[in-house]
Amino acid sequence: MIRSTMQRVPLSINSLVERAGKLFPQVEIVSRLPDKSLRRHTFADFRRRTRQLAAALLAAGLKKGDRVATLCWNHHAHLECYFGIPAAGGVMHTLNLRLAPDEISWIAEHAQDRFLIVDDILLPLFRQLKVGFEKVIVVPFSGAPVDSAFLNYEEFIQKSAEAFSYVPHEEDDPISMCYTSGTTGRPKGVVYSHRSTIIHTLMANQPDYWGLAAGDSVCPVTPMFHANCWGIPYGCVMMGIKLVFPGPHLHPEDLLALFQAEKPNFVLGVPTIWLAMLQLLENDPARYKLHAGMKMLVGGAAVPESLIRSFAKLGAEIRQGWGMTETSPVASIAYLKPELRDVAEDERYRRFASAGVPVPVMDLRLIDENGKECEWDGASVGELQVRGPFITGSYHNVPQEPERFTDDGWLRTGDVASIDAHGYIRITDRTKDLIKSGGEWISSVDMENLLMAHPAVLEAAVIAIPDPKWTERPLACVVFKLNKKTTPEELRAHLSSHFAKWQLPDRFEFLDAIPRTATGKFWKLKLRERFRPAAAEKN
Amino acid sequence: MIRSTMQRVPLSINSLVERAGKLFPQVEIVSRLPDKSLRRHTFADFRRRTRQLAAALLAAGLKKGDRVATLCWNHHAHLECYFGIPAAGGVMHTLNLRLAPDEISWIAEHAQDRFLIVDDILLPLFRQLKVGFEKVIVVPFSGAPVDSAFLNYEEFIQKSAEAFSYVPHEEDDPISMCYTSGTTGRPKGVVYSHRSTIIHTLMANQPDYWGLAAGDSVCPVTPMFHANCWGIPYGCVMMGIKLVFPGPHLHPEDLLALFQAEKPNFVLGVPTIWLAMLQLLENDPARYKLHAGMKMLVGGAAVPESLIRSFAKLGAEIRQGWGMTETSPVASIAYLKPELRDVAEDERYRRFASAGVPVPVMDLRLIDENGKECEWDGASVGELQVRGPFITGSYHNVPQEPERFTDDGWLRTGDVASIDAHGYIRITDRTKDLIKSGGEWISSVDMENLLMAHPAVLEAAVIAIPDPKWTERPLACVVFKLNKKTTPEELRAHLSSHFAKWQLPDRFEFLDAIPRTATGKFWKLKLRERFRPAAAEKN
Repeated sequence: MIRSTMQRVPLSINSLVERAGKLFPQVEIVSRLPDKSLRRHTFADFRRRTRQLAAALLAAGLKKGDRVATLCWNHHAHLECYFGIPAAGGVMHTLNLRLAPDEISWIAEHAQDRFLIVDDILLPLFRQLKVGFEKVIVVPFSGAPVDSAFLNYEEFIQKSAEAFSYVPHEEDDPISMCYTSGTTGRPKGVVYSHRSTIIHTLMANQPDYWGLAAGDSVCPVTPMFHANCWGIPYGCVMMGIKLVFPGPHLHPEDLLALFQAEKPNFVLGVPTIWLAMLQLLENDPARYKLHAGMKMLVGGAAVPESLIRSFAKLGAEIRQGWGMTETSPVASIAYLKPELRDVAEDERYRRFASAGVPVPVMDLRLIDENGKECEWDGASVGELQVRGPFITGSYHNVPQEPERFTDDGWLRTGDVASIDAHGYIRITDRTKDLIKSGGEWISSVDMENLLMAHPAVLEAAVIAIPDPKWTERPLACVVFKLNKKTTPEELRAHLSSHFAKWQLPDRFEFLDAIPRTATGKFWKLKLRERFRPAAAEKN
Repeated sequence: MIRSTMQRVPLSINSLVERAGKLFPQVEIVSRLPDKSLRRHTFADFRRRTRQLAAALLAAGLKKGDRVATLCWNHHAHLECYFGIPAAGGVMHTLNLRLAPDEISWIAEHAQDRFLIVDDILLPLFRQLKVGFEKVIVVPFSGAPVDSAFLNYEEFIQKSAEAFSYVPHEEDDPISMCYTSGTTGRPKGVVYSHRSTIIHTLMANQPDYWGLAAGDSVCPVTPMFHANCWGIPYGCVMMGIKLVFPGPHLHPEDLLALFQAEKPNFVLGVPTIWLAMLQLLENDPARYKLHAGMKMLVGGAAVPESLIRSFAKLGAEIRQGWGMTETSPVASIAYLKPELRDVAEDERYRRFASAGVPVPVMDLRLIDENGKECEWDGASVGELQVRGPFITGSYHNVPQEPERFTDDGWLRTGDVASIDAHGYIRITDRTKDLIKSGGEWISSVDMENLLMAHPAVLEAAVIAIPDPKWTERPLACVVFKLNKKTTPEELRAHLSSHFAKWQLPDRFEFLDAIPRTATGKFWKLKLRERFRPAAAEKN
């Protein structure tokens, strides 16, 4: 039997650290501190400090596979954790600082986190946690002295020996973990490996996707605890791309000031951030400006077409797609395929606002209610299922749940979609958010997008309300823009351009805000709790 | 112990075929036929025909791991072999049609090729082979009837059943093999796997390297038997990129006509092709034109800086690097790092003409005569050694040669180089081509490049001649441009701008052509045979 002659060298993120330090020693990593000043490091510093962190963790007794939690904003030290914890053989577990203290405690307990690295300005949150860590290492982010009850991150890494050897590993060994922010049920842990991370990074930085290249400069507004910041930190270290971290300052004014100062040409974040920034840019165009050619990677929740159009008018290109913590997360990207180059603007934007086209080195299928594969005809609707080397096949330390995985090993994403003949995915709903009225499905996502295209509407969320005659009926929750207002009648008329009469909501609720999950998604569970009869809650 | 939750799905080129057929059904694959007409297929055709080829091979008795040789020009059917043979569990072995029949026979015998797929126009070469194949499948490339002694490729694949299932495989299973065109010794086989090919393709198509994106159109002049056409066919199928195959018509006039007709914006080939094309473009600018913005990937031999500058004047960007059959082949690429954006033109071109910067997901080191790692200071010279998942760790079916691999498993490339502080590699020589004079090294490659920058010089090759006093002395073999001429004195004066007096060649030989290997490299062995005393040959 013939065998491949190729070397069996394990894929490893460690080699990225060495390469970045040697090839890109001058490229900058800029962090905004709590006092809004900027701290500057280089990739040479990054390599040195990452190795120091790894050496210090080993000296502190870290054993292979031990979890080291982080409770941090986006900054240079968090990037060092991304690589330094795995360099020591540990598993970085990013804790979501937007969750309730009890939930963080539950997650840290479930993951059996041994050490914690925490920002000094997050110590008030830390003190509310009901979980013990063997060592607590505090990043002196604000510059204030660190309480002697804790280890000071800077002293901790300075003390480590010069010599450091990466802890040997196999490519399937874990490097990081992240808990999904399930809108129902307990959070579940996804554990990434060297292998999944390298393959995902190489794939996601293809020219049609992230497309990060020499001279680019990236500002990740997406939290580093949110699906590994979508994998962007790995891509930047791999290709030697400047990073501009916003620290805790995520208000649009702060971000615009940072963009002005450091001129990133690639930014990423959830739609909420950019919706708020857009209001600022539109309301005070004399004061605030985006520099032209900005690329914006937007995700974590559906991106309204109106947002893409509005930013395009300002010279910025929104690129978005679809993915989940379980998919590393990039699973599809909405770029313009060559056959659609000459289509009319409306059709082009429709594609840009779709969930995009499935990426390679991963398989994706659409399965209908009867377990059959759907046609890619833009009409047939089914559940998205995915399989591949950067897709989770289980959750950490829970019994395998058959409703999350198929018998043949595919992940059931819980997202319901259609795919058109060109391969563009349109998410119509979460399985739990579907509205079935009179035996027909109504897409809450399509309805939300159309509502948000109305000039008076800032945000809209549509939920199903039980109905004795129709099974379910849609209810639309709407938030107005500042100083704007409209009526249910006008909104129904607006919707009737794309929806049949029987599909239109009977009921509108005008709210001050749509409740959101910790990662910025509409929290429909909360809306259902509020507006449905208690007994009718879907579970 | 914590484990990664990621799915353990094998990397596979099969998934690229399915994805291309489904996502890019309309993207074209254009082939130039022997009569210079064009045949058009689409990626939908490609998927169907590739599956048909695989089904036909299975029906013909192909077993897992069996070698199927190809003896073909660049065209659609050769692309079908790239994917169809592995789809059936076979290993595609591309035979180099430029080798002598005896050498091809030796290689096919050594690889134990079971079936052969051959172009009808190459049957005269096939008939000179002294090796038996169980089945010979003839591509009716010219359109002439196929001799009934053979199978007709079109009939062979048409007969296959509709239903086809990919033969299951592990990711380390072999998919293709290629023999190195060693300038000394017997050719040696490198065997690639699904894994090495997927990782190499994802890596090589990063934005700073190939950078192939939606709407691009690629013309591979590089033969498909030359290190898998540098991996480009895999990249095009992965990203849905139009392919324009030149068939057997590689003369610059033919290529320019094809470029005019099909407008590829990305072409690839060895320097010889572009040197000849440049003469045409410069001598008759009214008749021949490149369209602006053309990207040219040039490799297989050192690329003179003068070639890069000349094409830049014509609006084309040459991108080149360094690699070998053993490295899949992309190991370094000369792109402009961000810190060099503002350097003077001369310095910029010096980088563009270097072997470039090592790619990620691979380790590269420079080892001196004493086995120590060299500094990256642009001066220290050592052998390039590489390690990684797309680097060969052995050769097919030969005893492991310690002079080709280090004890710790790195490939010894045999290329001697320096690396500057920015990471740019400068190949100074093959280990066998080094010139050691008076205890000091002279770089034959640097001297060749400078000679080729002289307005009268088309090609130059510098070899070492034994010398009783200095150990060795350089001898320069020079080919003049059409209707141009110069003298040894003038060339010595030209060289003295960059070389010390003692380094200048004592002897010049003016030739009609530099002998070349089958893949277009200067064949210095032939020059040494001719100009050195017989007893002094290095081996």
